[in-house]
Order: sequence, then structure tokens, then C-alpha cells
Amino acid sequence: MRIAFQGESGAYSEAAAMRFDPSAEVFPCETFEDVFSAVASTKIGYGILPIENSIGGSIHRNYDLLVQHELPIVGEVMLRVTHHLLAVPGTTLDAVKRIYSHPQALAQCERFLHGLSGVEIVATYDTAGSAKLIRDQNAHDAAAIASARAGEVFGLSVLASGIQDFDENITRFLIVSRSATPLGDPDKTSLVFTLHNEPGALFKALSVFALRNIDLTKLESRPIRGRAFEYLFYADISVPRQDLQCARALVHLAEFARSLRTLGSYASWREPATADAAVQVAKS
Amino acid sequence: MRIAFQGESGAYSEAAAMRFDPSAEVFPCETFEDVFSAVASTKIGYGILPIENSIGGSIHRNYDLLVQHELPIVGEVMLRVTHHLLAVPGTTLDAVKRIYSHPQALAQCERFLHGLSGVEIVATYDTAGSAKLIRDQNAHDAAAIASARAGEVFGLSVLASGIQDFDENITRFLIVSRSATPLGDPDKTSLVFTLHNEPGALFKALSVFALRNIDLTKLESRPIRGRAFEYLFYADISVPRQDLQCARALVHLAEFARSLRTLGSYASWREPATADAAVQVAKS
Repeated sequence: MRIAFQGESGAYSEAAAMRFDPSAEVFPCETFEDVFSAVASTKIGYGILPIENSIGGSIHRNYDLLVQHELPIVGEVMLRVTHHLLAVPGTTLDAVKRIYSHPQALAQCERFLHGLSGVEIVATYDTAGSAKLIRDQNAHDAAAIASARAGEVFGLSVLASGIQDFDENITRFLIVSRSATPLGDPDKTSLVFTLHNEPGALFKALSVFALRNIDLTKLESRPIRGRAFEYLFYADISVPRQDLQCARALVHLAEFARSLRTLGSYASWREPATADAAVQVAKS
Repeated sequence: MRIAFQGESGAYSEAAAMRFDPSAEVFPCETFEDVFSAVASTKIGYGILPIENSIGGSIHRNYDLLVQHELPIVGEVMLRVTHHLLAVPGTTLDAVKRIYSHPQALAQCERFLHGLSGVEIVATYDTAGSAKLIRDQNAHDAAAIASARAGEVFGLSVLASGIQDFDENITRFLIVSRSATPLGDPDKTSLVFTLHNEPGALFKALSVFALRNIDLTKLESRPIRGRAFEYLFYADISVPRQDLQCARALVHLAEFARSLRTLGSYASWREPATADAAVQVAKS
């Protein structure tokens, strides 16, 4: 598999791709948009995108991009996230005056960061990119929160390990492709729909699943741009699209919805519970 | 009114406070957390917090903080947002190599930013803080996206005005207080609830509103920390809490919900449609 991901080498998206397929050839992209473009227009067959973290919540940008592009979801990977505080060798924790990382990673290490004093927290677009930044600056008064693998890639020391607030810190990634052929046997389907702006509209929409005992594992609302305080809904349901009950539910939903689109039907793949993905990828 | 807000002078939160009450005394705070602390522990009676933007979506951090703190919501302000590109006087658009702003503001000016080439986009915690940053650095190769008022506060020139992608760019702010006394006649109620993890749970929860024709104006899910992929739901309904139908719906919801809390019942205040709040505040 050839898989495009956003970020520098050492990014969690790269780790997710390599856990899913240890022989994958991975291609770093600067932005999430670039991952979609790479898959839409080149010979890179797949793209991997973080969509949700169990602590930080949804990565809304990628929900938006799934709708703007026509690439179906063909797989899902859940990766346990272990954050490390990385610095140029020789730097001590006491000397650190700035800590760089992606806002989601910073939010996931809130307690650790709260315990430090006199440290400026700087939000960046990228965890591994933050590691690269302090390496490039050869900064001895700064640190980055990123994966252990990012530390190895950029020759940084680990000042602290496993600094995330919760052990149960898992990121869900989606794999997109030009072809809708799923990677494995689908057990989930993702939808996006809009509703008429009237009381009870969402209730009616959810009835199509509840009446058939279909489990809704996720419901996310996002603003419709240009129409203030109207929403798109993203829903994940725990049935494959070819399932008869799912097909019936979607026909039923189409009756109520202003618009309805299936984003993909795919298999969920979760790495074994005890693995520390970042470290294992680093060692492989 | 004494109102605490997050950000530097010139922040949109400050503009929202001053539009709501032109005679308000405003107090800048470094973080959203600090706004809650200021109201909880000092003589500042009110705090104002952005909760949602019509383009960028919810400000999840503030949803999380509303639950962590016990401060009731007593008011809501909707403010039209007009972004400006600001720079140290003498700087030309061609010379700009870096643009600083809050990720939400950057996202709201995506088309404008996309039209520039060779410019690095830097995410910061604050729009007005970005304006202060380039003033402090006296940077002639950088610009900030912030309000016109931030430009006046920090003595910056306007390189471009109204650079947001959509005119209908409105931010909703919530006002919190120690006392639950609403500012005006309530017409909305905000709730937070958790559900049992079983098929149809959300459908049942929404039935309590649908059966009474109560309009759900917003539904937001947020992860429950430490319980992977289980969610808290935030709901806004367009009835005041003292309304009999609302009281009945809440008793009904309590039957199904694992937990239920009312965050506040309050009046929604929207500034007149044609006003450019930032500019008007600057001129006042």
C-alpha cells in the first residue's frame, strides 16, 4: 500500500499507517488538503486522516474535507497515542521555557503542562513538525510534544514519557481512496446529511436507525457555511451498507433529509490493547 | 456591568461585551479558564466566552469549561465578525511573509489566505494577541488577522478589510455569572446530558423535545475523558426553563439520561444586522 499522510516523518498519522500495514510506503504531505489531492490525482492509492481523538474530540477540518472531496472512506484505524516531551540533547526540563505542539496534543497533556511553571505553550500545526522545529533551531530552552518516533527521526532526547492525561488516549484515523473497495469486511457506515430547519427534524432522522436497532456510534454537527446556525450532521452507524436493514434505514432517512450522502462503508481495525504504537513503530 | 473576557484589548470577546453593554467595564484575561476563575472568585460579576462561530463551529474548550465550573449561563450575545489584515505601518502586502492569528480566524479567511503565495500561516491563541505580537516585534514582514479595534489599540495599519470568506460570519458568546439571574427574559435553555451506551439512546433523549414541539437549536457531542468514544451531549432548546413544557421535558429526559444538568436559561441578544461591531466599537 502507498499511503499519504499529513505531517512530518514521525507523525501519529504515519504510525497509524505503518501499524495498519507494516509494509506500507508512506508519503508525507504538508496539509490535510494535500492528502486528499495526493490521493485524488496521483498514483498514491490511499490517504490516512485523523478524524477523532478520545480525549480531544473530532478533527473538524477533516470532516469538512470529506464532504468537499469525493474520496470514499475504505478503512478505519484506531491508534493508542503516547505523547513524549522531546528536546535537543543536553536540554534539562528546568531549562525549558517554551513547549511546542499541535493544539490537540497540548490539550491531551493539560495536567502535565499545568504542573510546569514559567513555560510558554506554543500551538503549532503539527506534533512531529514541532520536533523538527526545535531541532532546526537547535533550541536549548524549548521542547516539543510528539511521538517517540519523532524524537528518533529528529535526534531528540526524551525529557518525559507518557505525559498524556489519560491512558485511554486513542485516535481514530480514516483511510480514503479513489475506489470505494473497502479494506476488509465492512462493519460500519459513515453518512452525512442535512435536515429541514423545523422542530423534531433530528428526532425523525434518528428514528430511522432506532426503529431498526441500528447503533449510532457517533453523531457530529458542523455548521453549514453561509447559512448561520444551520448544521450538517455526520453519523457513524455500526452496520455495513450492504446490510438490508441499513439499506432500508437510508431509504427511510432520504424521506426526511434535505440531503444525504454515504461517505463510505468500511471495517474498523484497532491495534492490540497493550501496544504503544509510537514506540513499536520506532523500533520496527 | 464588570465583564471579564479572554484575550488582549481589541479581542472580539471585548467587542461583544461592549456591544451588549456600551458602559461595561471590561477585564482582559489570559485564558478562558482565567475568565471562569475571575468570575468565580472576584468582584467581576460577569464573564463572556465565545461558544460557537457560524463558519468555524463550536469552541469546544468552552463547552468543557462550562461543565467543569458551576457558573450558570445568564445571557447570549451574537456578534457579526469582520476580520482585517493588520501590519506595522509602512508594511506592504507584498512584503508579508508570515500571517498570525487564532486557528478559527485563519479558517474563516481561508479563501483570502489561499490567494496569497509564499506566506507562512502561524496559529496563535489569540487574534488581538497576534496584533500585539507583530507590534512588539516591530515586524515589517508579518501581519495579523484581527479586529479593526485591535489595529487601533496596537497602532497597526489595515492592509485588507473584511477578509472573511462569508459575510454571514457570526460568533455566539455566552455570558456567565455566579448568580443564575438572567439578563433579560429567557427564551433559551442550555443542557448537558450523558446517556446509557445502547442503541436508540439519543433517539429517546430527543423524543422528550420532539413530542412537545420544542425546537432543538443546537446539539453538540463531546468525548467523555477517560471513557473512549462515549459522549456528553450539549443541547440548546428554544424555551425558557420556567416554561411548563420545558419542565416536563426535563423530567422526562431525566428518566432516560445517565446524568442531566441545566447550564442556564437566558435571553438571546443579537446586534442589529447591518452593524460592523468591531469598527463601531473602535469608533465609540
